[in-house]
Amino acid sequence: MFDRIAIVAPGLLGASLAIAAHQRSLSSHIGIYARRQEAVDALNPKPWCQTASTDLAEICADADLIVLCAPVDRIISLADELAPIVTRNPIVTDVGSVKLDIVQACQNTLDGRARFIGSHPMAGSEKTGMENAQGDLFDDRICFVTPTESSDPEALTQTNAFWQAIGSRVIETAPQEHDAIVAQVSHLPHVLASTLASFLHDTCPNAKDYCGNGLRDTTRIASGCPGLWSEIVGQNRDEILTAISQFENQLAAVRQAIAQKDDAALQRFLENGKLFRDSL
Amino acid sequence: MFDRIAIVAPGLLGASLAIAAHQRSLSSHIGIYARRQEAVDALNPKPWCQTASTDLAEICADADLIVLCAPVDRIISLADELAPIVTRNPIVTDVGSVKLDIVQACQNTLDGRARFIGSHPMAGSEKTGMENAQGDLFDDRICFVTPTESSDPEALTQTNAFWQAIGSRVIETAPQEHDAIVAQVSHLPHVLASTLASFLHDTCPNAKDYCGNGLRDTTRIASGCPGLWSEIVGQNRDEILTAISQFENQLAAVRQAIAQKDDAALQRFLENGKLFRDSL
Repeated sequence: MFDRIAIVAPGLLGASLAIAAHQRSLSSHIGIYARRQEAVDALNPKPWCQTASTDLAEICADADLIVLCAPVDRIISLADELAPIVTRNPIVTDVGSVKLDIVQACQNTLDGRARFIGSHPMAGSEKTGMENAQGDLFDDRICFVTPTESSDPEALTQTNAFWQAIGSRVIETAPQEHDAIVAQVSHLPHVLASTLASFLHDTCPNAKDYCGNGLRDTTRIASGCPGLWSEIVGQNRDEILTAISQFENQLAAVRQAIAQKDDAALQRFLENGKLFRDSL
Repeated sequence: MFDRIAIVAPGLLGASLAIAAHQRSLSSHIGIYARRQEAVDALNPKPWCQTASTDLAEICADADLIVLCAPVDRIISLADELAPIVTRNPIVTDVGSVKLDIVQACQNTLDGRARFIGSHPMAGSEKTGMENAQGDLFDDRICFVTPTESSDPEALTQTNAFWQAIGSRVIETAPQEHDAIVAQVSHLPHVLASTLASFLHDTCPNAKDYCGNGLRDTTRIASGCPGLWSEIVGQNRDEILTAISQFENQLAAVRQAIAQKDDAALQRFLENGKLFRDSL
């Protein structure tokens, strides 16, 4: 499918992507760039990594598909580093969970040197790192692909085909629309889980003694890496603030229904919530 | 441990309790009251039910332990029905998830006829009904036991011993303190999950196409029975309103930290949330 795939940063997503691409024979050569020599040493014996290096040019110069799997706040600066390196007008995509800033910056930076198409595979886990990588991480998961009017049509087609070959279901959407959607279905739930967990941290330090599975599930994602999440919040600030404000209005309406003993209104909220959850 | 145990209402909790008591040989006679004849017919062949009946007196008159496993809004009226029936000054307990109203009403109603001790085993599932019952449902789960100053000490000791024999870990606490705790660790998470799910029901009807495991976990309990939950809210209204208001303050502080780009404050919320969640 591709002569040489370059994966930049072998975290959970990057390493899982390499395993998946290897298992599905999407390229005869998968190269992986890592910042630390220890990561390169760990990658060298892997059957799903033909070359590993701390030298970005060694991995990316000859690639025809480059996937940026670094944390969201590193992606734009990686594109800056790639621009003078690449030689084959490659497709460059990423796995960042916010898109508008990344797509605008990377398209500009790489213009004329590489064809950037933003991607966001909705796969992951509260477990991070190469050691938790698995080739089926993307199976049947949604991958957003976020072209703009200036995207190269062939690069878009091949990016879609890549994610589908990895096992994902592709949804094409504009970058800003993507950011509004993930603010609602991903970032808002995270903010709520973290806020609930930090609230109980203050008020109910013995909660582990009383805690049922409901609380465990509701707060599970609050275990995610705080550094990563504050980066994500920083990149999708406006859409997240909008989603929080909308949620606050809904919660105030629920509180009022409870305070005013408006059982019909409360029942409606509970039933709509159940309808939605049962549909997932 | 008891001559005759009577279980009132064979739902998930009642039937699981009968199975657990049978497996642990806590009584040679377990009787179960059910409202509907079909439930009695289903109970009759069970090895863990020696007598089943739609006649409350037949099941409860000679019992020395009676466990009220009906929905929270039925428990007080069941105590009214029990008062003239019981003959052996039995221990009466319940599994209701709110306690202050129930304990006050049942102690009054049964005074001089039976010794009421409130209980709340924190076990359950979004699956309901006898067909999902299992004998290990209470294993290693917390059971709150909520005595008052007027509780009979021997009845309290035996109630604690019963739940421990069933496999639970007992925490004794005053009824009102119990209600404040469960408002925070159980009812507030449910309100938030339902509010988030009802919000997305309105704004994001296609969310099932994009939804990751984070959203699935965070909203799982919104699948609970709306009727049951509006009853629970009705019984613990004041404590739930307090918990919602406190949470709203916390969420407003998080929103402000995000809006003002106060990364240190945001990081603190995320880290406290992670600390709390990791402790569960």
